[in-house]
Amino acid sequence: MKNKLVFLFSLLLSSNLGIAQQDSIMLDQIYRHSFYKGKAYDDLKILTKEIGHRIAGSPQADEAVKWSKSLMETLPFDKVYLQDVAVPYWDRGEKEVSRIVDTEESLSVLALGGSVGTPKNGITAEVVEVEYLADLSKLGDAGRGKIVFVNKPWDESHVDAFVAYSLNSSQRSRGPVEAAKRGAIAYLFRSLSSSIDDYPHTGGTRYAKDIDSIPALAISAISANKLSEALKKNKNLKVYIKQNSQWKPKVNTHNVIAEWKGNIHPDKIITIGGHIDSWDVGEGAHDNGTGTMGTLDAIRTLMALGYKPKHTIRLVYYMNEENGVHGAIQYGVEAQKNNEQQIVAIESDAGGFAPRGFDIKASQDAVSWVVNNWKPLFEQKYWVSRFLAGSPGVDSGVWGSKFPNTIMFNLRPDPHRYFDVHHTAKDVFERVDRRELQSGVGALASLLYLVDTHYEAIPNQIK
Amino acid sequence: MKNKLVFLFSLLLSSNLGIAQQDSIMLDQIYRHSFYKGKAYDDLKILTKEIGHRIAGSPQADEAVKWSKSLMETLPFDKVYLQDVAVPYWDRGEKEVSRIVDTEESLSVLALGGSVGTPKNGITAEVVEVEYLADLSKLGDAGRGKIVFVNKPWDESHVDAFVAYSLNSSQRSRGPVEAAKRGAIAYLFRSLSSSIDDYPHTGGTRYAKDIDSIPALAISAISANKLSEALKKNKNLKVYIKQNSQWKPKVNTHNVIAEWKGNIHPDKIITIGGHIDSWDVGEGAHDNGTGTMGTLDAIRTLMALGYKPKHTIRLVYYMNEENGVHGAIQYGVEAQKNNEQQIVAIESDAGGFAPRGFDIKASQDAVSWVVNNWKPLFEQKYWVSRFLAGSPGVDSGVWGSKFPNTIMFNLRPDPHRYFDVHHTAKDVFERVDRRELQSGVGALASLLYLVDTHYEAIPNQIK
Repeated sequence: MKNKLVFLFSLLLSSNLGIAQQDSIMLDQIYRHSFYKGKAYDDLKILTKEIGHRIAGSPQADEAVKWSKSLMETLPFDKVYLQDVAVPYWDRGEKEVSRIVDTEESLSVLALGGSVGTPKNGITAEVVEVEYLADLSKLGDAGRGKIVFVNKPWDESHVDAFVAYSLNSSQRSRGPVEAAKRGAIAYLFRSLSSSIDDYPHTGGTRYAKDIDSIPALAISAISANKLSEALKKNKNLKVYIKQNSQWKPKVNTHNVIAEWKGNIHPDKIITIGGHIDSWDVGEGAHDNGTGTMGTLDAIRTLMALGYKPKHTIRLVYYMNEENGVHGAIQYGVEAQKNNEQQIVAIESDAGGFAPRGFDIKASQDAVSWVVNNWKPLFEQKYWVSRFLAGSPGVDSGVWGSKFPNTIMFNLRPDPHRYFDVHHTAKDVFERVDRRELQSGVGALASLLYLVDTHYEAIPNQIK
Repeated sequence: MKNKLVFLFSLLLSSNLGIAQQDSIMLDQIYRHSFYKGKAYDDLKILTKEIGHRIAGSPQADEAVKWSKSLMETLPFDKVYLQDVAVPYWDRGEKEVSRIVDTEESLSVLALGGSVGTPKNGITAEVVEVEYLADLSKLGDAGRGKIVFVNKPWDESHVDAFVAYSLNSSQRSRGPVEAAKRGAIAYLFRSLSSSIDDYPHTGGTRYAKDIDSIPALAISAISANKLSEALKKNKNLKVYIKQNSQWKPKVNTHNVIAEWKGNIHPDKIITIGGHIDSWDVGEGAHDNGTGTMGTLDAIRTLMALGYKPKHTIRLVYYMNEENGVHGAIQYGVEAQKNNEQQIVAIESDAGGFAPRGFDIKASQDAVSWVVNNWKPLFEQKYWVSRFLAGSPGVDSGVWGSKFPNTIMFNLRPDPHRYFDVHHTAKDVFERVDRRELQSGVGALASLLYLVDTHYEAIPNQIK
């Protein structure tokens, strides 16, 4: 099969076919290979089932680094290496406990990444509920010595659930500080989730200098409703919360990197990848097992088809996207130190659902060029049609701040189900569909082929 | 909430907003209502869990008709009625049994709808395997007195799994006749499925006059592989098949129809719907619980928003799409007899996954007009972007053959997972995602609003 494909590919190169037709034949080969021979799904099974969740700094993250490196070493990369990254290591400790004191009804909660623990015996206090974070400014002293509970519901009306997520995300990122400013002794907020169930969604939060760091926890939608109803009946009810999460000493860990050298412009680099760490619940399947295993499989697909890249293709598994982004920061520092020509970045970190398109960060001319030239190749046959100016992924966005001329692509899978599982115990291998994932690999490999082949034709590229 | 929406809608009508802006506001209201208040998912749960699968002619199909009618009667339709349809009633009988005789390994099979049974004690015979149906013509007498087994695998390379389905569908529709022509005494074929598992996929088949009707069964992908491997080791192995399916007397049943009268062009009819029958395995959730419950919910959404249709909107639940299409045939006969002006047909019968677009059967001018005017309303915000010339659904295609000027829309949901569950025991409620289904309701209600509001502006419309 492989020899046949290499032959086909050589034929394609040597023929007089039009460029669009050559591209179209190549995309056919890529998709066919991805669906038939792609191994992203098999690799994902190993990552999720044999290693499992892998928060930065944890032994599992270390295991994921070693396993990823050995996986990359099975492929004909020119170089596979680890890039040192020092990361903070936050440890959840024992399972959180929370309940309404009077009725002993338990509440499903998850401490936020970075949260301090409660005192050893927990906290028992009255609860002040508000809908919006902004309502805290009207609290006066009413929150002092209490648990502040922000219960803003998810805006279900958005097909693009990432829009709903961004509308509520300050609840998680700024809530603890805003609550502490009003004298709260702990902070609860309604999980950032599109589903009404009893799974809390964790995620990172921040504290501020000179403001008390108070325990901060996400509560499931069902438990949030339960608590809200109970407060309507008894506004003086007390809630008990106990958790013993803590920061451990910094850990030296790594980004995992593999390079496939370009045969025409070896110094021009296309960076493609996603983050290898995950939250410490579930299995980090959609976030971001699919992105890491998918981008590797995209490169493996081009290798299997006998493709020879013009530019250097560099696969990067960033460490610590979830609670610190230190991997991406370090990647940027090294790239800048080495004066690298980062021409293109491709990131996959929005789930392994059916691929819908790419958000593109580039000049308006470059975006238009991509839409005009490449959208027609994807749209009708592969159902990938969403090519829009937009934001890069978190990791490439972070290091990309030092590389303003890098053209950045962010894979956008179907968004309907992502925030059902995001940062929860539900984000497991069984939630990933093989055909959807391998369809995404097809889209990533096709884009990688197109940017490598046609980069010089894109307006405003780095000379 | 409802009054507020009615108010908003009135405001919208009376304002001086541009048409596109009015449409855009209306689509926002529709999607918001569908995600927050839509009940397609709840109705689907009743249909699938309380009634279950419902092959035409069965008591469950009768129950589905009665329940559907009562469901429509809860809404402010002008008229709800049953349209008489006589259908053939095929009964599977006891669960099929099949095994490799020597090893006693069981094979997972499902009789095809319409298949005759085996003799009472079953059939034991040698098996002749071919890959393609066309290979049968080379068999000579090798198939005589044997079980013919067509094992053409699914073409996994198509993102649009409906293309792969159509490539293999003659295995199911023409296989039994082709095998019988060569003297076969039974027919097995590899299930039309995108997944490699042990679930066989049933579906309809046909016999021909003057050709023996032989038992015809689908075999699961895993059992097909097992049988094929066993045949490589022993080409004289025998397989046992027993099943006692049969045709029962014709049954008088119904299409279920509801009308919402137009206030400007009451004689011009927009027909929207899907088929209420299903195969007799699983729960007929994606095929076609989602289409029936979804189209009703689309109308209910417009009603809840205070919309008043210009043309008559007619909801039709067709009976017997799966094995005879007698409901759609009857609908066409009646519509023609009454000299109806069928201006538009909308069908949903391709699953309840995330909506991707509509196939459109219309003149090239009409298709271009729809793409230019409506695609921009859907594409960026609602992720519905696939508006292409294409085929109508099966039911509207059948009655539409008598109405060549009717503009026909066929909802195209994401195709990746449909043929995993299609016509199997796996097609159950739990395979449907609420957000995906209600997103489809948003797309259907939006299209319904747009065709009703702007039909007269479409080129080549019926005057």
